Amino acid sequence: MNATAKSGKLIGVGVGPGDPELMTVKATRALRDADVIVYFAKAGNSSHSRTTIAQYLRAGVIELPLAYPVTTELPKCSAGYRDAIESFYARAAAEVADHLAAGRVVAVICEGDPMFYGSYMHLHARLAPHFDSEVIAGVTGMSGCWSAAAMPIAQGDDVFTVLPATLPENELVRRLAEADAAVVMKVGQHLRKLRRALERSGRLPRALYVERGTMAEEKMIPLAAKLDDDAPYFAVVLVPGWQDRPGGKPAGEASRERGGAP
Amino acid sequence: MNATAKSGKLIGVGVGPGDPELMTVKATRALRDADVIVYFAKAGNSSHSRTTIAQYLRAGVIELPLAYPVTTELPKCSAGYRDAIESFYARAAAEVADHLAAGRVVAVICEGDPMFYGSYMHLHARLAPHFDSEVIAGVTGMSGCWSAAAMPIAQGDDVFTVLPATLPENELVRRLAEADAAVVMKVGQHLRKLRRALERSGRLPRALYVERGTMAEEKMIPLAAKLDDDAPYFAVVLVPGWQDRPGGKPAGEASRERGGAP
Repeated sequence: MNATAKSGKLIGVGVGPGDPELMTVKATRALRDADVIVYFAKAGNSSHSRTTIAQYLRAGVIELPLAYPVTTELPKCSAGYRDAIESFYARAAAEVADHLAAGRVVAVICEGDPMFYGSYMHLHARLAPHFDSEVIAGVTGMSGCWSAAAMPIAQGDDVFTVLPATLPENELVRRLAEADAAVVMKVGQHLRKLRRALERSGRLPRALYVERGTMAEEKMIPLAAKLDDDAPYFAVVLVPGWQDRPGGKPAGEASRERGGAP
Repeated sequence: MNATAKSGKLIGVGVGPGDPELMTVKATRALRDADVIVYFAKAGNSSHSRTTIAQYLRAGVIELPLAYPVTTELPKCSAGYRDAIESFYARAAAEVADHLAAGRVVAVICEGDPMFYGSYMHLHARLAPHFDSEVIAGVTGMSGCWSAAAMPIAQGDDVFTVLPATLPENELVRRLAEADAAVVMKVGQHLRKLRRALERSGRLPRALYVERGTMAEEKMIPLAAKLDDDAPYFAVVLVPGWQDRPGGKPAGEASRERGGAP
């Protein structure tokens, strides 16, 4: 890549939580105007963000899928895994840089919001110092989930925290107890530990388990009522704040109650 | 209101951070289809959300502005203030309920995302048990800010926290030190205290001050370079995580650097 080449433009496009109608007007315009559409995908899987944008794609646009290397044989914290991922992002950035240097407008589509735990950031950090760039904010996956659940998540002076379920159990307990409202991400194989942490922090009765919020296969259930500990990697658990709200019900129930006196 | 009346529909519509193009496709459709548009405004001020949606309004739609009572003479934590606000929301809900009972589709527009610190929640909690309702997620104000700053805010296993600047200084220090990434809201008159808390927690060098992100009057500056402690109520301070990112610069500088070797 050439440090003085500025003819192309890199655009990080947030495509929202999955429902194509939850894309912003700006994102749909960026997709119509782009020369190249880039997306990350697990090797052998389809890309969720590619599915979300299908209806907005211009005929004839160049598509550049970037398939994550298969690294299941390497432990995630190992140097080998980190090296494989680092060299993957470096190669991906070089491929995108070729299009930018050729003067093309490149839209990198990203589930949710590009700067909030998004893969786009790995390209942005490498390319934005050298090319014109723009970031188009998107609706986060968690906003999609609590809106689909009609769950008020935080209000007033609530402290709101996003936690990865990968944290040790005691750390989860402490942080859950200190937050008024929380979202726990990357639930996957950690659901049993997370359930214990929610119970110990007194948060289990308000916790709502959500899979694939806003998508056709959406599932949601109060975690206390979920009988197994099976969960995909992308499942989230929502713990609403705003404890003095009118009615004051655990929000996992609020959206299911209709009728009755005010 | 009548518990069995379900003819109308209540829709909480997130209109995003201010740029009209950052509204979702679904939000623009809801505004086109609504019979009544409701918005909150400070008495004597125009409504930001009303300004954001102006271009999407259908001619002839009924508008219902809800002006917050003037309560500057009451301390915010007083029972008098709470009573004034409570009875304001109760009256507002009754006005909206009249439209719903008459079978109208009522869109309540809300800056950012309706369920994330939004005023809509006060209507939702009172009306959703009695009428059909839907929540349309929006891009949050904070997403708008970090995207406008091209600032990667959180990545990987980062713990991300939203804090109100109203917290006591020691509480801010402790919570800032424990979070990998943070957004501090409601900065206003608390900027001097917040600056000390950021310094004591070691976070001042990475803190970015943002006013009116994505709007025409947008202002952003590394907080360490801001010479005064004047800030409007809606200013936010962003503290990015992802400390081991390529380049590893405080993100307040990252978007300003162009050229140079990779």
